[in-house]
Amino acid sequence: MIRVGIYGYGNLGRGVEASVYKNSDMELVAVFTRRNPSDLIIKTKNVPVVSCNDVLAWREKIDVMIICGGSATDLPEQTPYLAKYFNVVDSFDTHAKIPEHFSNVDDCAKEAGKIALISAGWDPGMFSLNRLYASAVLPDGKDYTFWGKGVSQGHSDAIRRIDGVVDARQYTIPKEDALSRVRNGENPELSTRDKHLRECFVVVEEGADHKKIENEIKTMPNYFADYDTVVHFISAEELKLNHSGIPHGGFVIRSGNTGFNNENSHIIEYSLKLDSNPEFTASVIAAYARAIYKLSLEGVNGCKTVFDIAPSYLTAMSNEEIRAHLL
Amino acid sequence: MIRVGIYGYGNLGRGVEASVYKNSDMELVAVFTRRNPSDLIIKTKNVPVVSCNDVLAWREKIDVMIICGGSATDLPEQTPYLAKYFNVVDSFDTHAKIPEHFSNVDDCAKEAGKIALISAGWDPGMFSLNRLYASAVLPDGKDYTFWGKGVSQGHSDAIRRIDGVVDARQYTIPKEDALSRVRNGENPELSTRDKHLRECFVVVEEGADHKKIENEIKTMPNYFADYDTVVHFISAEELKLNHSGIPHGGFVIRSGNTGFNNENSHIIEYSLKLDSNPEFTASVIAAYARAIYKLSLEGVNGCKTVFDIAPSYLTAMSNEEIRAHLL
Repeated sequence: MIRVGIYGYGNLGRGVEASVYKNSDMELVAVFTRRNPSDLIIKTKNVPVVSCNDVLAWREKIDVMIICGGSATDLPEQTPYLAKYFNVVDSFDTHAKIPEHFSNVDDCAKEAGKIALISAGWDPGMFSLNRLYASAVLPDGKDYTFWGKGVSQGHSDAIRRIDGVVDARQYTIPKEDALSRVRNGENPELSTRDKHLRECFVVVEEGADHKKIENEIKTMPNYFADYDTVVHFISAEELKLNHSGIPHGGFVIRSGNTGFNNENSHIIEYSLKLDSNPEFTASVIAAYARAIYKLSLEGVNGCKTVFDIAPSYLTAMSNEEIRAHLL
Repeated sequence: MIRVGIYGYGNLGRGVEASVYKNSDMELVAVFTRRNPSDLIIKTKNVPVVSCNDVLAWREKIDVMIICGGSATDLPEQTPYLAKYFNVVDSFDTHAKIPEHFSNVDDCAKEAGKIALISAGWDPGMFSLNRLYASAVLPDGKDYTFWGKGVSQGHSDAIRRIDGVVDARQYTIPKEDALSRVRNGENPELSTRDKHLRECFVVVEEGADHKKIENEIKTMPNYFADYDTVVHFISAEELKLNHSGIPHGGFVIRSGNTGFNNENSHIIEYSLKLDSNPEFTASVIAAYARAIYKLSLEGVNGCKTVFDIAPSYLTAMSNEEIRAHLL
């Protein structure tokens, strides 16, 4: 059994708990929290909730620590620190800062002889893998990534900060026309506006100025100004009834040519349709936790990404089984 | 530059030649043939065509030999033999015999300190990878592989062997209804007949008995009897005009659930739409030839499959570049 610790118990931490439950070769041994441990009720029976302050006492009892903090401020601190004492996996997803995070974690893990994997999930993660495989196979081609239909937490939060807004849910939606052009091998140049639509469901205070709020949303720089944005005002009840899930997904498509005269074109498409963004992210993380565990037994150390892990490490099946049944 | 040899110059060998041309870190150094070398004109200028009998003279001049023979009788002989002298890649695709082929090649490669990769291509190959990744990420789920729309060489050949048939082209077509049910997460049990349709374009001799030939096709065991089969009789000109390409493709879909009560479902879909089956297969092989070359420099030996190769080995980009741009 692979002994797993969960560090941080928000949406992602709860997702990891559910994923460990689905993997019969893994067991959850502790959940670590910054909150008061006695205030936290977790789903798994007979597993202790422990204060983050006591984490080092668990060094010999955990094979892989899955760090479920946020990328903005938690993970840049937590992952390098914990990599000094544990094999770790995180889902760091600030794409622009990955090289810096990698380097920090690599230093700590190498010094401690531990192995770390950063940026597991679906983007970064499964989407990254598909961008790499597709570009290696079709070097003369063009990559497209579309996200959605799904809830963007960041955009929903941005709307909630507007005066008069009580709650909001924002969906990122890929534009069908852009998707079709890419799938047809047209290799289009697509602007931000061409690729995605933003649809917002907004609950406002009584007497709030709908026109003004709608305008504030649509003109918000970085978040909405560069997109076609649709705003619906709905009741709190309707939001709860129809928009309480956290679905997401998307598409990675590469269109490329082969032949001495580029005479043949090919489309590689990978897509995800997810009922629960955090549970799927957690499922990817669990598979990589297994890989990290196996590699730690081989004495491998330092920081890794999904690019560095041979696929066979992800599965509980033996190499003989996967060659016989999946190849 | 990675010095590549091509062993066998049929459709796949020509595809590999075109792929090497698309990869700026590779150069073709020789094509080996069982035919009389002077009878063979290849596309690349100033590259020698050499008799298979003289292949051992090229041991020091080739980094990776790409073996382009057929799986039925060529590769079971050629790959173990050549793995004694070269790093090799093949596209062995008889799924049921992969374990035996792996073992034979592994013995020869290990003894010689060479590295070999078998079964590169798209199925086995990219489809296998996607079956593995998806099953590792969603352990509680179900896999579906659909092929087509595309030309099946084996089925076309089977029709050509019927008395009175001059030429034929058979397309394997996934059934839309089955695809939709899988994409909807219904996890259906699908029979052979439910999944694929077989469409045949057949040219017959003058005065041939259409009814009889159509019946012979539709009732042919293994090839057609278990499928819904559509037969069209067309002229040789029409066959040449509309059916001379070798397109193919298909879908690998996994539908699975997460959550303590399976409350969330997820669909992972990978699909290929290929103008040229052999050129795309060759493109995958070229990327794995690069991986094999890099691993040989690290002193790795023995037989590998796509499951054993970390994705970073496939690309000409550095690890820093892929982390910065593709993760």
